[in-house]
Amino acid sequence: MTTPDRRGLLHRIAEPEDVRRLTPAQSVRLAAEIRTFLVENVSRTGGHLGPNLGVVELTIALHRVFDSPRDTLVFDTGHQAYVHKLLTGRQDFSGLRTRDGLSGYPSREESAHDVVENSHASTALSWADGIARAHDLRGRHDRHVVAVVGDGALTGGMAWEAINNIAADPTRRLVIVVNDNGRSYSPTVGGLANHLDTLRVTRGYEAFLDWGKRTLQQRTGPPGRFAYDWLHGLKKGIKDVVAPQGMFEDLGLKYVGPVDGHDVAAVEAALRRARDFGGPVIVHAITEKGRGYSPAEEDVADRFHAVGAIHPETGLPVAPSRFGWTQVFAEEMVTIGRRRPDVVAVTAAMLNPVGLAPFAREFPDRTVDVGIAEQHAATSAAGMAFAGLHPVVAVYSTFLNRAFDQVLLDVALHRAGVTFVLDRAGVTGDDGPSHHGMWDMAVLRVVPGLRLAAPRDEPTLRAALRAAVDVDDAPTVVRYPKGALPEESPALEDLDGVHVLARHDPGAGAPDGRRVLVVGVGAMAPVALAAGESLAAHGLGVEVVAPTWVLPVPEVLVKLCGEHDLVLTVEDGVVDGGVGATLAQRAAEQGVRTPFVHRGLPVEFIPHATRSQVLASRRLRAEDVVREALAALPGE
Amino acid sequence: MTTPDRRGLLHRIAEPEDVRRLTPAQSVRLAAEIRTFLVENVSRTGGHLGPNLGVVELTIALHRVFDSPRDTLVFDTGHQAYVHKLLTGRQDFSGLRTRDGLSGYPSREESAHDVVENSHASTALSWADGIARAHDLRGRHDRHVVAVVGDGALTGGMAWEAINNIAADPTRRLVIVVNDNGRSYSPTVGGLANHLDTLRVTRGYEAFLDWGKRTLQQRTGPPGRFAYDWLHGLKKGIKDVVAPQGMFEDLGLKYVGPVDGHDVAAVEAALRRARDFGGPVIVHAITEKGRGYSPAEEDVADRFHAVGAIHPETGLPVAPSRFGWTQVFAEEMVTIGRRRPDVVAVTAAMLNPVGLAPFAREFPDRTVDVGIAEQHAATSAAGMAFAGLHPVVAVYSTFLNRAFDQVLLDVALHRAGVTFVLDRAGVTGDDGPSHHGMWDMAVLRVVPGLRLAAPRDEPTLRAALRAAVDVDDAPTVVRYPKGALPEESPALEDLDGVHVLARHDPGAGAPDGRRVLVVGVGAMAPVALAAGESLAAHGLGVEVVAPTWVLPVPEVLVKLCGEHDLVLTVEDGVVDGGVGATLAQRAAEQGVRTPFVHRGLPVEFIPHATRSQVLASRRLRAEDVVREALAALPGE
Repeated sequence: MTTPDRRGLLHRIAEPEDVRRLTPAQSVRLAAEIRTFLVENVSRTGGHLGPNLGVVELTIALHRVFDSPRDTLVFDTGHQAYVHKLLTGRQDFSGLRTRDGLSGYPSREESAHDVVENSHASTALSWADGIARAHDLRGRHDRHVVAVVGDGALTGGMAWEAINNIAADPTRRLVIVVNDNGRSYSPTVGGLANHLDTLRVTRGYEAFLDWGKRTLQQRTGPPGRFAYDWLHGLKKGIKDVVAPQGMFEDLGLKYVGPVDGHDVAAVEAALRRARDFGGPVIVHAITEKGRGYSPAEEDVADRFHAVGAIHPETGLPVAPSRFGWTQVFAEEMVTIGRRRPDVVAVTAAMLNPVGLAPFAREFPDRTVDVGIAEQHAATSAAGMAFAGLHPVVAVYSTFLNRAFDQVLLDVALHRAGVTFVLDRAGVTGDDGPSHHGMWDMAVLRVVPGLRLAAPRDEPTLRAALRAAVDVDDAPTVVRYPKGALPEESPALEDLDGVHVLARHDPGAGAPDGRRVLVVGVGAMAPVALAAGESLAAHGLGVEVVAPTWVLPVPEVLVKLCGEHDLVLTVEDGVVDGGVGATLAQRAAEQGVRTPFVHRGLPVEFIPHATRSQVLASRRLRAEDVVREALAALPGE
Repeated sequence: MTTPDRRGLLHRIAEPEDVRRLTPAQSVRLAAEIRTFLVENVSRTGGHLGPNLGVVELTIALHRVFDSPRDTLVFDTGHQAYVHKLLTGRQDFSGLRTRDGLSGYPSREESAHDVVENSHASTALSWADGIARAHDLRGRHDRHVVAVVGDGALTGGMAWEAINNIAADPTRRLVIVVNDNGRSYSPTVGGLANHLDTLRVTRGYEAFLDWGKRTLQQRTGPPGRFAYDWLHGLKKGIKDVVAPQGMFEDLGLKYVGPVDGHDVAAVEAALRRARDFGGPVIVHAITEKGRGYSPAEEDVADRFHAVGAIHPETGLPVAPSRFGWTQVFAEEMVTIGRRRPDVVAVTAAMLNPVGLAPFAREFPDRTVDVGIAEQHAATSAAGMAFAGLHPVVAVYSTFLNRAFDQVLLDVALHRAGVTFVLDRAGVTGDDGPSHHGMWDMAVLRVVPGLRLAAPRDEPTLRAALRAAVDVDDAPTVVRYPKGALPEESPALEDLDGVHVLARHDPGAGAPDGRRVLVVGVGAMAPVALAAGESLAAHGLGVEVVAPTWVLPVPEVLVKLCGEHDLVLTVEDGVVDGGVGATLAQRAAEQGVRTPFVHRGLPVEFIPHATRSQVLASRRLRAEDVVREALAALPGE
C-alpha cells in the first residue's frame, strides 16, 4: 500500500478542511490509519520513521485548530512533516525521497502548505518570529503563526535568540509547540533538558492529563481571552501547589502544558487556547518518538530516527552497512583513544549517526554530547585544546557551516589543535539540498592554517585521522562521504603525500606525447581513475593522482601541474573556489600556464535524488569529465 | 600621561600578586587611579572607553580572588580587558591599537594572562566550559575558570548553548560573571533583558547592596561551602519574600546577586564564595558603562562604547566624520524607507554603529534590534520576506560569518528577498584580526543566487542599495569599508553595469599595443586607477574598470578579459577564491586564456595597524600591484 486504503478515512482527506470536519472519534481513527500507513510505506522507502510516528496526533490537532496556509505552520527540521504532507493532499509516498517523488522535507514546490524547507535544526522559531512580525506590520492581525520544534532543537543557540525576541513583544500572536520526546537525535543533554524534565514531573503531568481528558475535551466552545485565562488559572493552580515558575515564563512567554501529545482532543484544546491568547505562547506537548511501532519503541537509543529501507515487521535493515566510512572512523577513533588519553570526542546530538557510540562506550568520560549546538562544539573544543586535550569534533559536513565563525576565530586564530571530522560530505542524495555536504572545502579554504584531508578509501581515512590528531597547533579537517566504502585504490608511488594511482604512457596515436594530469579529490578518486583509463585509450599520456591532504594545496601537486599539458580536477564539492580552483590559483601564481578543467558541483541547490543520479545530472561521471578534458586539450 | 603616575598605586602593580596585597581601602584608591588613567589615555588614542570604565572594580576584584594565569580569566568581547592589561604588567598605553603597540583586545603574544583574543561576542562561556572540562579530565581540580560576559552577549545563541552545557554538570567549577550594564552596544532587547531587569528590581537590589556594604566587607574569612551556603541562604531569604526563582536556577546554575559592580569588596566577597562553591555559579554584577566620566555618563545612547581620539574634557571627537560610508547608507535608508513601506531595518545590537539610528527615529515600527543574534537576524529576515516585507539587515562584515548557514539555507535556498549591508568590510585596521571584514566575498560566492555589490564611492553606494532592495527573489549584499568616503570616480562608460573609469591608449613605447585590464573591486577602485596611470606611463594600453555588482561575475567583464593581454584584479578581501579568482575561473571556462594577476589579502590573520599600514604590508598599494602586473606581463 503506497497510497491510503480506499476504505479508510485518510483516503478522504484531500485538504486540511477535511481534517477539521472529522468528529473527535474520527480523529482518533485517522491517527491509527496514518500510523499504519507510515510504518508500511517508510519501511519500504526509508526515511524519518520515528519522528513522524511521534507527531501523528499533534499534526492532526494542528490542522484542526489552524487554517493552513492562511495560518503558517513551520516545522523545525522538516523531517517531521510526513503527517502534514498526508493531510495536505500528498498521499503518494511510493517515491518518497527519490527523484521526482515526494521530498523528505517540506517543499514549497510541492505545496502552498509548506513554508520552510531547511532541514537544519532550531530555525523554526526565527522563521515564525519574522513571519508574525511581518503580519503585524502589514496589519494582517487575523493570521496565526505556529512553530513546531523538538525539545532537542531548543538546545540550539538560534532557538534562544528567537525566544528572546519573541518574548520581547507581548502582543505577538505566535504559538511555539514544543514536541518533547525527551530526546532529539540522542538523549538530550544539559540544563534545558533538566528543566523540561522538571516541568514534566513537578507540574503534575499525570494529574493534568487525567483532568485534561475529562474536562478539556468538552471545552470547545467560543474561544477567547476568557477561555485562556480559565485554562491558565487552572494551570497556575496546579503550579502553585507542585511547581516553581518556569524559565519560559521568566522570559515572558506564556506556558501551557505539559499536554499528552498523543491525545488529539487534549492537544487541540491547548492549541485553541494558545491561538486565542493574543500573545506568544509555548505549548509543551509530550510525545513518544516511534509511538505505536514496537521495533521503534524497543530501540531505546534513537527510536528509528531515520531508517533506510527496513522490514516492517522486524525493523531490521534490508540493505546493511550503508555507512562504511562512518564505521571505519568509529573503529579508528577507539584505537586512537586507547593510545592517546588526551583525545576527546565531541558530537552535536549525533553520537550514533557520526559513529561515536563505540568510543563513548569505552571512554564515556572523554565523550561530550553538547546538544544541537555546533557553535559551542567548536569553541568549547578550542577551550579544551588550550587546556591540553585534543578534541575530535564529529559532525555532518553541512552542519559545520553553522560554526564557520567559531572555526575561524576561536579555533584557527588561536591555533588550537582541534580535529573536525565531516561525515556526509559531498553529495548525500535523498535528504535534499540542505543536507548535501558540498560547501566545506570551498568555505574552509579561507581559514588560515587549516589543513583538510579528503581520504579516498579505508586506509587513507585511517591514516588521515591519525595524522590529524597529531597536529596540535592548527585546526585539521577530515571529510568523507555518506555511503559504502569504495574498493581500495593503492598508491603506485607517494610523492610527499600526493599518491600516484595510475600512470599511462602516451599511446602511439599521440606522437606529440601530450600528457594529462587527473586529480581525484577524496571520494572522486574512482572517477579520476576511470577517466584516466579512458583518456589513455585516446592515446594520451595520463597520470592520475589523489592528494589526501588537499588544503593547503600540496606544493608537489603545483609542480606536477607544470609538467602536464592539461590538468583535470574532479571533486564532490562546489567547483567555484574548490580544491581544483585553489590549485589553479597557486599554479598561476608560480607562473604555471597549464590549462585546467575543473569538475565539481555547480553553485546551486541540488534537489533530492540518489548520489549517482546527482553525479550524473551534474556531469560528474567518468565519461562526462573525459569529454570536457578532451574538448579543452590544447593544440588539438 | 601615557604611563601611570609614579606617585600612585597603579605604578606599583607589576602583576596580579600586587593587587592581592592591597588593603580594601587601597583597592578603592587603585580603582580611582585606573579610571583617571583610562580617560586620559583612551581619549588620546581612541578605543573602547565606556566598557572599560564600567569594569574597573570588577577586574580588580577578579584579580584579588583568582590566581591568573593558573586560574583562567576569559573576557567576552575582549574590548573590556584594558583594566586587566593594567593589572597584568601592561601599563604603556601610548600605542594602544597602533602597530607594535598594545592590542585593543587580549593577546596571547602580549601576556600569559590573556587566553581568548576573539572579539566576537558570546564565545566566553564556551571557552570556559571547554577549559574547565579539560581541567577536570586531566585531574587539575585546583584550577578555576571564570568567564566575564556582558548582559548583551547573553542574548547570543552561543551563550545559551554554553549555559545549557555548563549546567549539565553540577560539579564543574566554573564562574560566570555577568557584567550587567543594562545595555550591550545599544539598549538590550528581549526576554532575557526583561528577566535581568526583574532580577535587579525584585531581588531587592538596593536593600541587598546596603546590607552587602555593611556585612559582606567584613566576611573575608576562610571560604568554603559553608560560606557560600550562608550567603546563599541570605539570598534565598530575600528572594522568597520578593522574587520568583530565576531562570538560571531553573536551568541548574547557582545564582549570586545582584551585586554592586562598583563596590570592590562586595564583588570580591561574591566571587570568593562563587569560587569555593564547587559547581557552576552565575555572579550577577550591576555596572555602569562609562562610570565616573561625565561625558560618557551623559551619553545615554551608548555611553562612549568605542571612541576615536576625543578631547578628554568634552568627550567630543578630535577628527570627525570617520564613518563616511555609514553616513551615506544611513541617509539612503531613510530615503528608501519613505518610498517603500515594506522595507524594514534589522540590526544585531548595533543600531548606531551601522547607521540605522536615523531610520529608527523615522520608522521605529519598522526597525528591529534582535540583540547580539546574527543567526536570528538572518532567518527572521527570511520569514519577513516570506510574508511580504523587504528586510535590510545591516551588520559588520565580520559578524555575518556567524550567520553563514542561515544566509545559505534560510535566505538563499528559499529565494528570500533580503538585503545584507556589510559595513566595515575589508581592512578595518585597529581592531585587529577578528574585526577585519575580509572573508565576506570569498565565502558568499558559494551561496546560490546571491548577488553582491561592492560600491566604490557615494553614488555607487546609493545606487547599489536602491538596486538591492528591488530584488525580491534572492539575497543581495552591499559591502563597504570603514572610514571616510573617497572622492567620487565617475564612469566614462557603463558597460552593462561595469563602469569604465579610465582608458589609456598604448603609448609609443609599446608598439605591440599590449593592453592591460585593471579591475578595481569596491574601495580598491582608487588603487586600480592609480595603478592604471602608472601602467600607462610604462607605455601600455590600459582600461580601468569597476564592476559594482561583482558576484556573480558580470558576463561583460569576462568578455573584456578576453580582449586584453593581462588582467589585474585588486580587492580588499582574501585573494583565494575572491572576486578576481572567480572572474579567472569563469574566463577559463569560456576558453579565455588571458593571464591574471590577483591582488588581495592573503589567507592569514592580520594584526592591528592602520588601514594604510595593512594595505602597504600586504603589497596592496598602487606601486605594489603595478610591479606584480609588469612582472607577469606576457611577452616582455
